[in-house]
Amino acid sequence: MECVIAVHAGAGYQKATKEANYKKICMKACKKGLEILKNNGSALDAVAVATMVLEDSPLTNAGYGSNLTWNGAVECDASIIDGSNMHYGGVGAVSGIKNPIALAKLICENQNLKMSFGRIPPCLLVGLGAHEYAIANNIVAVDPFNLISEKSKKDFVHNKYKVINQKYSNCQAGNSRLDTVGCVGMDKLGNVAASSSSGGILLKQDGRVGQAALLGSGCWAQNMSDDVAMAVTTSGCGEHLIKTNLAREMSKQLLNSSCPTIAITKCFNEDFIHSPILKNCNEKLAGALVLYKNKDCCEILSAHTTKSMCIAYATENDKKSFVSRLMTNTLPGTSVMVQGYPI
Amino acid sequence: MECVIAVHAGAGYQKATKEANYKKICMKACKKGLEILKNNGSALDAVAVATMVLEDSPLTNAGYGSNLTWNGAVECDASIIDGSNMHYGGVGAVSGIKNPIALAKLICENQNLKMSFGRIPPCLLVGLGAHEYAIANNIVAVDPFNLISEKSKKDFVHNKYKVINQKYSNCQAGNSRLDTVGCVGMDKLGNVAASSSSGGILLKQDGRVGQAALLGSGCWAQNMSDDVAMAVTTSGCGEHLIKTNLAREMSKQLLNSSCPTIAITKCFNEDFIHSPILKNCNEKLAGALVLYKNKDCCEILSAHTTKSMCIAYATENDKKSFVSRLMTNTLPGTSVMVQGYPI
Repeated sequence: MECVIAVHAGAGYQKATKEANYKKICMKACKKGLEILKNNGSALDAVAVATMVLEDSPLTNAGYGSNLTWNGAVECDASIIDGSNMHYGGVGAVSGIKNPIALAKLICENQNLKMSFGRIPPCLLVGLGAHEYAIANNIVAVDPFNLISEKSKKDFVHNKYKVINQKYSNCQAGNSRLDTVGCVGMDKLGNVAASSSSGGILLKQDGRVGQAALLGSGCWAQNMSDDVAMAVTTSGCGEHLIKTNLAREMSKQLLNSSCPTIAITKCFNEDFIHSPILKNCNEKLAGALVLYKNKDCCEILSAHTTKSMCIAYATENDKKSFVSRLMTNTLPGTSVMVQGYPI
Repeated sequence: MECVIAVHAGAGYQKATKEANYKKICMKACKKGLEILKNNGSALDAVAVATMVLEDSPLTNAGYGSNLTWNGAVECDASIIDGSNMHYGGVGAVSGIKNPIALAKLICENQNLKMSFGRIPPCLLVGLGAHEYAIANNIVAVDPFNLISEKSKKDFVHNKYKVINQKYSNCQAGNSRLDTVGCVGMDKLGNVAASSSSGGILLKQDGRVGQAALLGSGCWAQNMSDDVAMAVTTSGCGEHLIKTNLAREMSKQLLNSSCPTIAITKCFNEDFIHSPILKNCNEKLAGALVLYKNKDCCEILSAHTTKSMCIAYATENDKKSFVSRLMTNTLPGTSVMVQGYPI
């Protein structure tokens, strides 16, 4: 079976002048992930390694270079799911960890542990406890200040000044990068995995957890049968994605449809843009990267209501990186741009 | 419209000798909630107040008297949802807060706030950041040690000794109370709300967040139309409830069925006990308390795969408290006991 990996560097707004940089880091992430897959590695391993490349880049809002919280800290969310056994690991508002996805992966893998006393291994760890668990399990910790990039510091100072001085109370945080990253992949055995990693929105309340930490809203992956498998990772406004549980809803729509493009379009329209759950919300910003396989086809699909979304994918025979953009004159949050790429 | 409130003190195992105490605290919680509803208060207010009564009791595993973590701390999860506007507030692994549900409710209500810079008010806060948010918003904080009851301390010392000495590595934590609490309610306007509050499993990893903090797995409530509304709160193994998103799945099954008892039975069987998502899990322990209303009827329903579940409900004309028990000779985690109570 052909293996495949795909990543995105955020549903948000990638300036045309920075497009080349975004595409480059996405291709690098795919390359690293593909190496694992080509060597018969698991989808889980590949997805984690590709996500780490994105976390290490100052360009993305994940790991190093994450947006800073109101108190000036880096607090990361990340999650990963293994579609072959439905194990999931998530971390929320964790500080001082170089690669939050590595910690999420450890939590995911540790679900195989047999614990005494009928205790169940945790699937979601947050804050100090998550940090402590990382240290006890040899996950690389760093001085929290070493996760702050020059750009994130500058954005923080600039925007916090504006907020405190109430000079621009109605303007949008144009500089606050929404560039949550994510990855989906399938290995040679046909097993799928998905991941999500984020620094959250600029100037967020300390302790805030977004969808990137949470199963179903941040990511979902499932080997449905020998023929059918799917993996989904989301990006965008965390609170709206939590409420709509978009990743999992999308996998259900995919399962109930013979055409993945139609399923994703329907899901975005019914379960997000026009969802009664978001009836009181104004701007509905989200993106999704999807891997869908059935017995006839395998596709990578992207969808977003944001201005743009940078995506890359790679197989043994093909690779591509591009920025998908909403049609000109379309208001972000009101309609969805869906594209499919057969593998 | 007749208002109603219902609470549960945990799907787990309530000893016959303690049954009277459990019923008493559940009735007290209902009474407090009903007072609010009778005075034209909102379902959200009533549900929160009833949950606080349960949190304050040393009998339940929520708030005061919560199970202690591996490091001997009380770390609480709680969440609440307002079915009239789909606002949700959750807290995870928060320490030193007398009533975690009060903090969750504040987060829920603050979703009406207009924040500068296009920032979205958070819906899920954890750990220290959540504590800080509580203090800044005048939620009652207490010395963390004041949330430790005599019983929870004794259980902690006793069971940690056993685990460390590896003497009983295969035995179940029979003394570790699963008594997560929850509440559902409907006010005179027909608006519904649901809540969940938990101290988590005994000797849990610090920083572990369970379903009680999370929308969809811990609770769900929705005014579907003028005629149809439902509220669900869950209890049981947090990790399994997170993976299956049981509260939200149940609301969907209810919406697609003309008989709530059948819908709940089907949901427990298909989406929990026999769910492919839990295929690698052994013991599938869960409970749910449900409020369902359509144009013809209003019902409170309970369902559990655990040995027992203590429930109470109250309306202006009726009140009842009881312990629902799995049938004798039935193995917990393998079949579900569903009961309905017309209002």
